[in-house]
Amino acid sequence: MFNVVVKMDDDDLLLQAQDGQNLLKLLRDNDVPIPSACGGRQFCGKCKVEVLKGDKTLGYYTAGEMDSLSYLERQMGYHLACAIAVSEDMEIAIVNMEEEARIMTDSASSTFALEPDIYKYHLVLPKPTISDQRSDLKRIEDAVNIRDDVDRSILRRLPDILRSNDFNVTAAFVGYELIDVEGGDTTAHKYGMAIDIGTTTVVGFLMDMNTGLQLDVYSFLNPQRSRGADVISRIDYTINNEHGLEELSRMITDDINDMIEAFTNKNNISRNNIYEVAVVGNTVMMHLLFELPVKYIATSPFIPVIAKRYFVKAKDAGININPNGYVYQIPNVAGYVGSDTVAAILACDMAQQDSISLMLDIGTNGEIALGNKDMIYACSTAAGPAFEGAQIRNGIGGVKGAINKITLDGGVDFTTIGGEQPIGICGSGIVDAISEMLKAGIIDEYGRIRTRDELAGTPFADRIIEIDNKPAFLLTYVDNGESIAICQKDVRELQLAKGAIAAGVRILMKEAGITMDQIEHVYLAGGFGNYIDYNSACNIGLLPMELRDKITGIGNGAGAGAKMCLMSQQYMKKAETVRDKIHYIELSTRPDFQDIFIDLMGFSI
Amino acid sequence: MFNVVVKMDDDDLLLQAQDGQNLLKLLRDNDVPIPSACGGRQFCGKCKVEVLKGDKTLGYYTAGEMDSLSYLERQMGYHLACAIAVSEDMEIAIVNMEEEARIMTDSASSTFALEPDIYKYHLVLPKPTISDQRSDLKRIEDAVNIRDDVDRSILRRLPDILRSNDFNVTAAFVGYELIDVEGGDTTAHKYGMAIDIGTTTVVGFLMDMNTGLQLDVYSFLNPQRSRGADVISRIDYTINNEHGLEELSRMITDDINDMIEAFTNKNNISRNNIYEVAVVGNTVMMHLLFELPVKYIATSPFIPVIAKRYFVKAKDAGININPNGYVYQIPNVAGYVGSDTVAAILACDMAQQDSISLMLDIGTNGEIALGNKDMIYACSTAAGPAFEGAQIRNGIGGVKGAINKITLDGGVDFTTIGGEQPIGICGSGIVDAISEMLKAGIIDEYGRIRTRDELAGTPFADRIIEIDNKPAFLLTYVDNGESIAICQKDVRELQLAKGAIAAGVRILMKEAGITMDQIEHVYLAGGFGNYIDYNSACNIGLLPMELRDKITGIGNGAGAGAKMCLMSQQYMKKAETVRDKIHYIELSTRPDFQDIFIDLMGFSI
Repeated sequence: MFNVVVKMDDDDLLLQAQDGQNLLKLLRDNDVPIPSACGGRQFCGKCKVEVLKGDKTLGYYTAGEMDSLSYLERQMGYHLACAIAVSEDMEIAIVNMEEEARIMTDSASSTFALEPDIYKYHLVLPKPTISDQRSDLKRIEDAVNIRDDVDRSILRRLPDILRSNDFNVTAAFVGYELIDVEGGDTTAHKYGMAIDIGTTTVVGFLMDMNTGLQLDVYSFLNPQRSRGADVISRIDYTINNEHGLEELSRMITDDINDMIEAFTNKNNISRNNIYEVAVVGNTVMMHLLFELPVKYIATSPFIPVIAKRYFVKAKDAGININPNGYVYQIPNVAGYVGSDTVAAILACDMAQQDSISLMLDIGTNGEIALGNKDMIYACSTAAGPAFEGAQIRNGIGGVKGAINKITLDGGVDFTTIGGEQPIGICGSGIVDAISEMLKAGIIDEYGRIRTRDELAGTPFADRIIEIDNKPAFLLTYVDNGESIAICQKDVRELQLAKGAIAAGVRILMKEAGITMDQIEHVYLAGGFGNYIDYNSACNIGLLPMELRDKITGIGNGAGAGAKMCLMSQQYMKKAETVRDKIHYIELSTRPDFQDIFIDLMGFSI
Repeated sequence: MFNVVVKMDDDDLLLQAQDGQNLLKLLRDNDVPIPSACGGRQFCGKCKVEVLKGDKTLGYYTAGEMDSLSYLERQMGYHLACAIAVSEDMEIAIVNMEEEARIMTDSASSTFALEPDIYKYHLVLPKPTISDQRSDLKRIEDAVNIRDDVDRSILRRLPDILRSNDFNVTAAFVGYELIDVEGGDTTAHKYGMAIDIGTTTVVGFLMDMNTGLQLDVYSFLNPQRSRGADVISRIDYTINNEHGLEELSRMITDDINDMIEAFTNKNNISRNNIYEVAVVGNTVMMHLLFELPVKYIATSPFIPVIAKRYFVKAKDAGININPNGYVYQIPNVAGYVGSDTVAAILACDMAQQDSISLMLDIGTNGEIALGNKDMIYACSTAAGPAFEGAQIRNGIGGVKGAINKITLDGGVDFTTIGGEQPIGICGSGIVDAISEMLKAGIIDEYGRIRTRDELAGTPFADRIIEIDNKPAFLLTYVDNGESIAICQKDVRELQLAKGAIAAGVRILMKEAGITMDQIEHVYLAGGFGNYIDYNSACNIGLLPMELRDKITGIGNGAGAGAKMCLMSQQYMKKAETVRDKIHYIELSTRPDFQDIFIDLMGFSI
């Protein structure tokens, strides 16, 4: 073992190196912020270190260092960290600190090293002569390290690309795999995408991998909805229809390809310059994207085919980016806790903290995670799409004209998104409505809407109308004269949804042995988490009132986590660490879950 | 550095290990014959060592060792070499020496370690339960190490294969890549193929990868002949026909698939149990197989797309073995010295010897290699197919009824293959004929066939007939009354062919600075090399007479080398070492080649 002292602005850092250990790897393993665009191939020249003590490096340079370091730099004792195998005690200083990327979520932002696994090198190659008969591929290999076999589609085009561009080309890599050779210098064009595939909503992000900037965002409704509103009905569809799996897979890939076309047209880029797509979603959505069988996820013991990170060549996945690029899933946890949860946990950083956090990602399914850097307990509840406004009589998504805030203070007051004429009610509006109806006594503790007679003498008696032979509460009328109302069935849907989530939280606390006051942060992911009124959420019992002041909305946490994984190999590794930390709790087979669920379906007034 | 003493029967071996170096790797790198069927995954239990000195291993066992070693073996101090990271001075003994495979060539055999890169593991996996919700893939990964992403075609079938076989399956690997999961225990079925793709003839071998035995052999004429007899005319075909490249590629893959079908039917095996195909051939044949552009090989500076070893998934290559298996080329050297030459050099072992060898592989092209373990010079000559009996008036391949030996001793005596009625003349017969005609004075030193008048008074005057207005020498008549004769054009074809090869030998000697008496072995590869009369070959000047007694025929050296690479990873590595040792000499642009060629086209009488 040797001592390596790293001189830092604030303080020196003492690291222990094994004999022969690569210096760049040593620094990165110890989180020293040294940049490396080429991943340690002695090519990019970014990982410069000044060797202050270390005799063996004196005057010795590798071919890569000779190319990457100027005469003056060599005179100053500069080396590439990736070229040094530590074999003596050393003292070094980092010449440049690394660039950072910034991810904006709706309510939070985080910075991290911009370090995607995509590399582009501009190469001006020597032309072949009778005394230099190297193969076309060898000519590139001698300029830049290629580890894997090169796809034939590249080899087929290679001779003409080289010759029509006078051997002036750009080589594009994912990892050590050569995925394209492009004419001229195209290093400025390096794009990637992150996609969050929800059961109901799909959101995609176009990212510039050179700058870390988000160039565009695009969302659409998951076309598979027409084959089933939730994951179970989609699994059933694949079981009951001979080509159902292929059909569902094609539906989502087709729409993703439409998104890619929109991105490339609007931003005037080539789809061949998009090299990676990082995808998150629940485990069933991931299986459907990759056309993997889901039938054994449906029934106990709910086994997926694959849960870990998984890379598929874009052309095999049918995704129209660079055909040799990759579409990959962030690791999933279990049949019903997917990579979207792992990504949201990454985005809220709870797996790095000592303090205990509760994270809820409420979509068509409600995924819940509880824990800290040592251990995270997670479960999934079939909350149903009530919080997204679906299966609610007048429910709609968060579009213009959706009632999103309601107060019943002697009368009905509400606001709509964009201030438009009301056309329906969105998730946050529904939660507000139920909460206010509870406070006004319109709903009893069992969730029953009181009758006109019972409410006689209150300002709300006249607003009780009858829908499906049951009392309903009239909010307003739309232009065509139809009513917008909360009916009894809506209340029941919401009770089921909030009861399931609240019960999930209780089970996780019980399993983890964590009490309410130990929870320091509550993160609400998903669009819902940002727009919901936290008082209303606690009032209806979705979350315990004790946690009211600890709630933070983190917006599309799953999408933010996917972007992080796309742009930083360190985060992709962290995603696997997070996944390994997660202890999955299967709720469906627990008798205590049913008890707690029934208990929490009611309202405490 | 630590000292590792390996106790051997004859003598002890002292090796130097770096701190933490894997013991198995250390042993193999130093050519210690220790077996390892699983490639160091602590699975097969074959690399047992007895640790005689080495305190740190005392009583410590990895999970892999606990599975692979019996209680008694552990009591005896046995370990798996692949489980030990050397961290102290050690003394060990190898418990089992490795098994060997034997390759038969027509005239030689060699033994080597049977160590293919194909692995099969029979796995009886625990079934999923609600408390063991691992994914299907993880269940396999936890039983055996998988390094790469698994092809989707396997994942799609995996859930049903596991469940319909009660989780009793066999996992098949190439390297660390899982390439199939088969129901039950199929470890006994592990096959591979080696193919030598000649410009004129293709030979395939079916090998049992468990025993190293050759199960079958099959040969056919290269169907691309109909699109051109030699490599240049086939390259031209791809240039002059829009889909010419695809067509030539499909022709050869179709016929290889016919061969595979013949193999599987005759030997009653499944094509899915053939996992690898090692292919050799000249560089153009390799390009055509993989449908890679050849147009820039045709003209100076003769650049191939790829020369190194290259693996293509069988399903991508269109070869009907296990679709996730691999078809791969042994490394090529240059545009006109291919993997067949590398394989033949491997087969005759010249690259391991101190003594200097000359190797000639005479087919449609004549490849020549000269050197020893330090350096090998190689060139290719466009000999043309004369030695294969093509472009010769009555030339045929080595089939029944072919005249194969001729003596002119006062009259015409000949033998035919199989003793059948003569139907034509094969390569060795042509060489014999020319040689005897020279001795009898029927041909002069310039290669001119003498006229009836000039030969008046000899027993052969009557045999001079006229073909194409030039004298020809009548050998015999076939049943239908047509003549079998050596005509003037035949002599010219042979002069061109032997002149080109003899000149190639001289250029290599000149470049290498090697004199005739320094050459200790001459290896003749190809069917031709085994059947030719060495005296005749030297007499016509194909080889210098000084080398007459040093000639050995090695039969299909290219095929033998391909089988070695298929069955031994060490040989595949050696193939790359051989390739790197080869210094390619481009003859076409050398003025001295033309001079020597013209000089050697004549005959010395």
